Amino acid sequence: MTCELCNGDGGIVLWRDQRLRIVRVADADYPAYLRVVWQAHVREMTDLSSDERTDCMRAVFACEEVLRERADAYKINLASLGNQTPHLHWHIIARREDDRHFPRPIWADTRRETASRAQLPDDDILAPLLAAKLSARA
Amino acid sequence: MTCELCNGDGGIVLWRDQRLRIVRVADADYPAYLRVVWQAHVREMTDLSSDERTDCMRAVFACEEVLRERADAYKINLASLGNQTPHLHWHIIARREDDRHFPRPIWADTRRETASRAQLPDDDILAPLLAAKLSARA
Repeated sequence: MTCELCNGDGGIVLWRDQRLRIVRVADADYPAYLRVVWQAHVREMTDLSSDERTDCMRAVFACEEVLRERADAYKINLASLGNQTPHLHWHIIARREDDRHFPRPIWADTRRETASRAQLPDDDILAPLLAAKLSARA
Repeated sequence: MTCELCNGDGGIVLWRDQRLRIVRVADADYPAYLRVVWQAHVREMTDLSSDERTDCMRAVFACEEVLRERADAYKINLASLGNQTPHLHWHIIARREDDRHFPRPIWADTRRETASRAQLPDDDILAPLLAAKLSARA
């Protein structure tokens, strides 16, 4: 079995430790889109210990905070789906009221062709912002 | 402003306390579909205190556990979106490989007309299962 998230990072790595990594997703419609990927090939949140779950969600919330502070979003969307890649990962997506799919999830039909895109700072600015949030979480 | 989740339960209430409620969603394609709804009108997870976030996620994970134990699911999907109803709530959905949208999220185009549906026990069985998980979480 080959798993995409075991064999690759799944995006540009902005932060990583032994347990998890935070990557920036390359999505033309959603430039303010981060993922938290659990390093080990684990299927569901409830396969993690209580301590690991807390750690994972703290990373997700750190991403949410950064998107709220920097992406000028109307709403943040969080999701752990994994139907196609059953290796635990979270999507953290900044949404705008006039983005491609709003108010529907980004996996639904598109709503408009000319769409607004929430922006995020460059990687070299974003990475230390995340690192600061994650060092504060302990 | 009228908020659907301030003015109504959003489903059949299986469990509730001061902070949150767990409801069963009426979705013909997804009978194994629960929601955790924060009681107060709060927008994002990071609007909650650390203690409240933990409490909220414990309820989400209790739902995930019940679905894993009782719904014969291939994968559990978790999502907090709220684009249409920006009042904090989580979707916890049991997925099967031959359900209506698999492997896509349930908000995407349907993939098949004749679909499998993950089942859940009746409310009078489900409610005490959730209560047991939630009393154990403290």
